[in-house]
Amino acid sequence: MKIVLFQPQIPQNTGNIARTSAVTGSSLILIRPLGFSTHSRHLKRAGLDYWEEADVKEADDLPSLLEKEASFFFFSSKASRVYTTAPYRDDSLLIFGSETTGLPPYFFNQWPDRFYKIPMVEDVRCLNLASSVAVVLYEALRQTRYFERPINVKRMLAKADVVSGT
Amino acid sequence: MKIVLFQPQIPQNTGNIARTSAVTGSSLILIRPLGFSTHSRHLKRAGLDYWEEADVKEADDLPSLLEKEASFFFFSSKASRVYTTAPYRDDSLLIFGSETTGLPPYFFNQWPDRFYKIPMVEDVRCLNLASSVAVVLYEALRQTRYFERPINVKRMLAKADVVSGT
Repeated sequence: MKIVLFQPQIPQNTGNIARTSAVTGSSLILIRPLGFSTHSRHLKRAGLDYWEEADVKEADDLPSLLEKEASFFFFSSKASRVYTTAPYRDDSLLIFGSETTGLPPYFFNQWPDRFYKIPMVEDVRCLNLASSVAVVLYEALRQTRYFERPINVKRMLAKADVVSGT
Repeated sequence: MKIVLFQPQIPQNTGNIARTSAVTGSSLILIRPLGFSTHSRHLKRAGLDYWEEADVKEADDLPSLLEKEASFFFFSSKASRVYTTAPYRDDSLLIFGSETTGLPPYFFNQWPDRFYKIPMVEDVRCLNLASSVAVVLYEALRQTRYFERPINVKRMLAKADVVSGT
């Protein structure tokens, strides 16, 4: 899977999402401008050593990036369909808006059918961005049976066996 | 659902988890000693205004708490079964260890059948605690169809309609 963050503003969130992408073998694409420097001390601190292990790229323009992609989904509280019903594929792009302003109306107008939401109860604002990404990503991995495939199971079990053998 | 954090150490994580519990109508139980004061400035900052909206309790002893519970699950990298296979119920307790030391061996020895893991690729440490809680909680809510029930759908759609109507 590829996680796309549109103009993320809070370095601790992006650091945590880099960690999530590293532990799932996913890649991370940051759409500029970012609300921080990717060399900042804050980012390294929040992302621990995961930043180095994560596959992170930056890009300037999301629409031109999407021209080459067959499977992409936006996650927003504006959507009416639930994230568990999206037709995820291995190569899907999972796109999340900025913490402060979300996704611009252009995307919703252009691709309304590709918008999904994470259900939340009323009158409380919303999940933290890093938590939202983790929820959607693990659902997409569950549906595409990523962790059941031989190569991933092997990588996964190699770790589990060592731990449970102690 | 009830989220249980065993001796959490990092206030920003607990703040984020309080936010996750608030937006899902779940409750949060913190098992002492905590690595921070629940009145600390850090916690209020990380948890924003969600701390007040969350249903948070503290307790001193997890085993005595579990005596009264029929359905509880531990989440740990030591487990071999995947979190998607746990038989969740509406009133399940979802128990997570401390960020630094995890869960003590006593629990694994006592209830090995109740241990589940979130799959991750090898050689990378692990998901952030707040992300782990969000992933497991949303899977438990999905399986128990929490967001499909009339009362929750109503609470949920009331918000979505306002937003999509703009």
